[in-house]
Amino acid sequence: MLRLHNSIRPAFRSRRWAHNIPTFSHLNSVNEEDIAHFSNILAPTSILSTLSSVSTPADDIAPYNIDWMGKYHGQANSVLRPRTTQQVSEIVKYCAQRKIGIVPQGGNTGLVGGGISLQKEIVLSLGAMNNVRSFDPVSGVLVADAGCILQSLSEYIAPHNHIMPLDLGAKGSCQIGGNVSTNAGGLRLLRYGSLHGTVLGLEVVLPDGTILDQLSTLRKDNTGYDLKQLFIGGEGTLGIVTGVSILTPPAPQATNNIFLALPRFDNVLPLFQTVKRQLGEIMSAFEYIDRTAYDMGLQHGLGPLLSADEVGDSQCFVLVETSGGNQDHDLEKLNSLLESLLTADEPLINTGVLSQSPTQFNSIWALREGLTECVQKEGKPYKYDVSVPLADFQNVVDAVRERMISKGLYGDHAISKVMGYGHVGDGNLHLNVIAKHGYRPELEAALEPFIYEIVADRKGSVSAEHGIGSMKRDALHYSKSEVSIEWMRKVKQVFDPLNIMNPGKVLP
Amino acid sequence: MLRLHNSIRPAFRSRRWAHNIPTFSHLNSVNEEDIAHFSNILAPTSILSTLSSVSTPADDIAPYNIDWMGKYHGQANSVLRPRTTQQVSEIVKYCAQRKIGIVPQGGNTGLVGGGISLQKEIVLSLGAMNNVRSFDPVSGVLVADAGCILQSLSEYIAPHNHIMPLDLGAKGSCQIGGNVSTNAGGLRLLRYGSLHGTVLGLEVVLPDGTILDQLSTLRKDNTGYDLKQLFIGGEGTLGIVTGVSILTPPAPQATNNIFLALPRFDNVLPLFQTVKRQLGEIMSAFEYIDRTAYDMGLQHGLGPLLSADEVGDSQCFVLVETSGGNQDHDLEKLNSLLESLLTADEPLINTGVLSQSPTQFNSIWALREGLTECVQKEGKPYKYDVSVPLADFQNVVDAVRERMISKGLYGDHAISKVMGYGHVGDGNLHLNVIAKHGYRPELEAALEPFIYEIVADRKGSVSAEHGIGSMKRDALHYSKSEVSIEWMRKVKQVFDPLNIMNPGKVLP
Repeated sequence: MLRLHNSIRPAFRSRRWAHNIPTFSHLNSVNEEDIAHFSNILAPTSILSTLSSVSTPADDIAPYNIDWMGKYHGQANSVLRPRTTQQVSEIVKYCAQRKIGIVPQGGNTGLVGGGISLQKEIVLSLGAMNNVRSFDPVSGVLVADAGCILQSLSEYIAPHNHIMPLDLGAKGSCQIGGNVSTNAGGLRLLRYGSLHGTVLGLEVVLPDGTILDQLSTLRKDNTGYDLKQLFIGGEGTLGIVTGVSILTPPAPQATNNIFLALPRFDNVLPLFQTVKRQLGEIMSAFEYIDRTAYDMGLQHGLGPLLSADEVGDSQCFVLVETSGGNQDHDLEKLNSLLESLLTADEPLINTGVLSQSPTQFNSIWALREGLTECVQKEGKPYKYDVSVPLADFQNVVDAVRERMISKGLYGDHAISKVMGYGHVGDGNLHLNVIAKHGYRPELEAALEPFIYEIVADRKGSVSAEHGIGSMKRDALHYSKSEVSIEWMRKVKQVFDPLNIMNPGKVLP
Repeated sequence: MLRLHNSIRPAFRSRRWAHNIPTFSHLNSVNEEDIAHFSNILAPTSILSTLSSVSTPADDIAPYNIDWMGKYHGQANSVLRPRTTQQVSEIVKYCAQRKIGIVPQGGNTGLVGGGISLQKEIVLSLGAMNNVRSFDPVSGVLVADAGCILQSLSEYIAPHNHIMPLDLGAKGSCQIGGNVSTNAGGLRLLRYGSLHGTVLGLEVVLPDGTILDQLSTLRKDNTGYDLKQLFIGGEGTLGIVTGVSILTPPAPQATNNIFLALPRFDNVLPLFQTVKRQLGEIMSAFEYIDRTAYDMGLQHGLGPLLSADEVGDSQCFVLVETSGGNQDHDLEKLNSLLESLLTADEPLINTGVLSQSPTQFNSIWALREGLTECVQKEGKPYKYDVSVPLADFQNVVDAVRERMISKGLYGDHAISKVMGYGHVGDGNLHLNVIAKHGYRPELEAALEPFIYEIVADRKGSVSAEHGIGSMKRDALHYSKSEVSIEWMRKVKQVFDPLNIMNPGKVLP
């Protein structure tokens, strides 16, 4: 099985990466003649190739052949950077005719190797298509080229008091077309929902070069099948997203957060219900951190947000964020929530803190957001990004720890820590397993497919928000039935009968 | 062309309905042998048929062969009412083998003839599959059989302080499976988004009888193509939705509304922006009523909410609803909004009223909701349910009126009123054209395809929320390109190569 995050193990990289690559005997490599043809479509500066007629320096091609983790190493000898949808269409038409594989690439910030050429496919980078096509400050509908960077779009609409409905750590590099193609989740999903709801329309170049223009700016349109949904999360295997129409919400006027210490994991779920009921529409995040993760954070200088006395033997912690329209109102709601929590007969929390300033607001978030970095310092992390029902959050973490204990692999000699944190509100658990002295095959063998199996057993998802790419193709069956996979194949076959569009991704 | 709402013109019914029916030479009628086979799958009480072996009285079959408007008259001689997904699967398998057309039917509250048998297809009613499968009060995820009535589901989750993310006039009869299959919009879309976002999973029986189980309860799951989206708004032409997993939001603690009179239509859009900014997350409806519609309402005894002096020469009106977590906070926000609106240098409103009691709250809504009934009293209405960009709302209404004037058809002798009202927040315009003395072919000829053309010209939708069904098949091209329709056909062909599943619907 593949490990989910495998960014820091060069020794194993080539072998593992290699065994997962299907053979593309149906595809042709890009040759000089092809480059000559592309020169009729694109400006010379839009073609990068190591072939002699172009002779791009290897360093200039490299960024398109390696993902940001440095985990996936692509084989493309040529990269095309079209500026218009028409150019994309002409390139794809030609590639279909010549049976050249195409890897659509956005900001190259994916975590599952979905944007990297596996063999001889050409990379089609959308980065040069980066114009905002329109923004309507009344409806909040933004229409943009696929290559627009998420943060640039946020900045574009900020003066109109709108925000993008999604936010990611990679926002400075990731592109909206890539966000849509991978159905990116991120920090605002709890509040604004998924891209399946916020994307109003798409422009897509299909694998035969046809331009499918469904770039609607309408919030409601019930005229036939909603085909655009297939490309949201399609990871570029059904077509290339070239334009996106998306509904952007009004910016909140006030944000606040609280940090709570809970006696037991059992308190998390009733707490979630209470908070949801009392804060209602202003709750914008509900994040979970278990005790192991919290203590690790403290050891690495995060916090402390609460004194050791206050924390006592709390088993876990919760961060709640609000985003509302009126600071006074939101604070009143938060204070009233805290008061009712602290004075309850059977308290769900031991203690809690409410941020009183932007600095405190940031330091509460810093504890949660700093965990990823701490994990890296602890050793080599096996990281799993899964969805499981809320009630199973800590069970999954505990089951993994027990498994390692039963195998004699728990302790400083092997797995030093097993911890969980993540988005309770979204059911998205980040399970982190730390190998203190580095990755070892027997550790991985103890973890996988065990973890996939317990996730599957709880009807969970082996990929909550990162997608499948090439990394999790072989784990797809843990979350999708044979029937589902068979119908995915049929859909792929209709859209891409030649299998030229991002071949070897998503489907096993 | 077809008129959009054609409920009250029996004289024309048969002819118009007839010319729109395609020939199903590929399908077989249901015969005694088929009924015998169905008897092996279903209990006797689950089979209704006029064939001699069953001899159901015609009156018992009739409700399945006529829609609630009395506009569409079906031809089915048999109705099956399965109780389990397995039964649905076995029925469909048999029908595929025998090439018997199937019309999936929910609460039969559709407006476009999507649930009525056109020729000899069998009706498969989901009404007997009406169990809640599970509800998780923590996550708010409800899993229910397709035949559950929307209002029953609302009542089921109400004690847990949750509400359904959609609400419709037909809630007492419509079924959740039908809601999903038609991608029903309704009154809560502005706040909670469309079913493409709130439906987490579906169980679908495909046209070959395969059960596609994607009944996930996960909020986040990025494992491959999101096939369920095709069945949301697929109108039963790609498969039969048998189970639905849906995210239900927490119930709001407080609801309020205001009614505003505006000097000019030009004020609507800046007002929408102002309200959205000031009310933020608590705004749950923003409804538009033009002066013609308001005056008509008054003549029929609605309101008055404002005195004639207050209204003056206001050109239009807006109803704003809030749903929030704290009545004091919400009222404070509303009062502050009203104050800033009334004291502005260039006021966007002439006057306004804020409901002070549940009675006043209801009477403000009564004006908006009562318009439909008033329209019926004024004459015979041509009703168009379209989406257009917000800026074009009144332009479309005015263009239609001017058209009728230019044709000499405006006045008590022909079209007495042209008016618009609807959901500004959703871009959904209800355009009503009243034929004082009844429907006449030359009136319709003046209206259509003129209206479809101006909607298309503004990149609007000829069906904002009602779907296509059999009624608007021939108008589909006004909102979808040839390319889009071609790809819809391809998708239909993959899922239903025998064309047995709701044949003659959606696709022209």
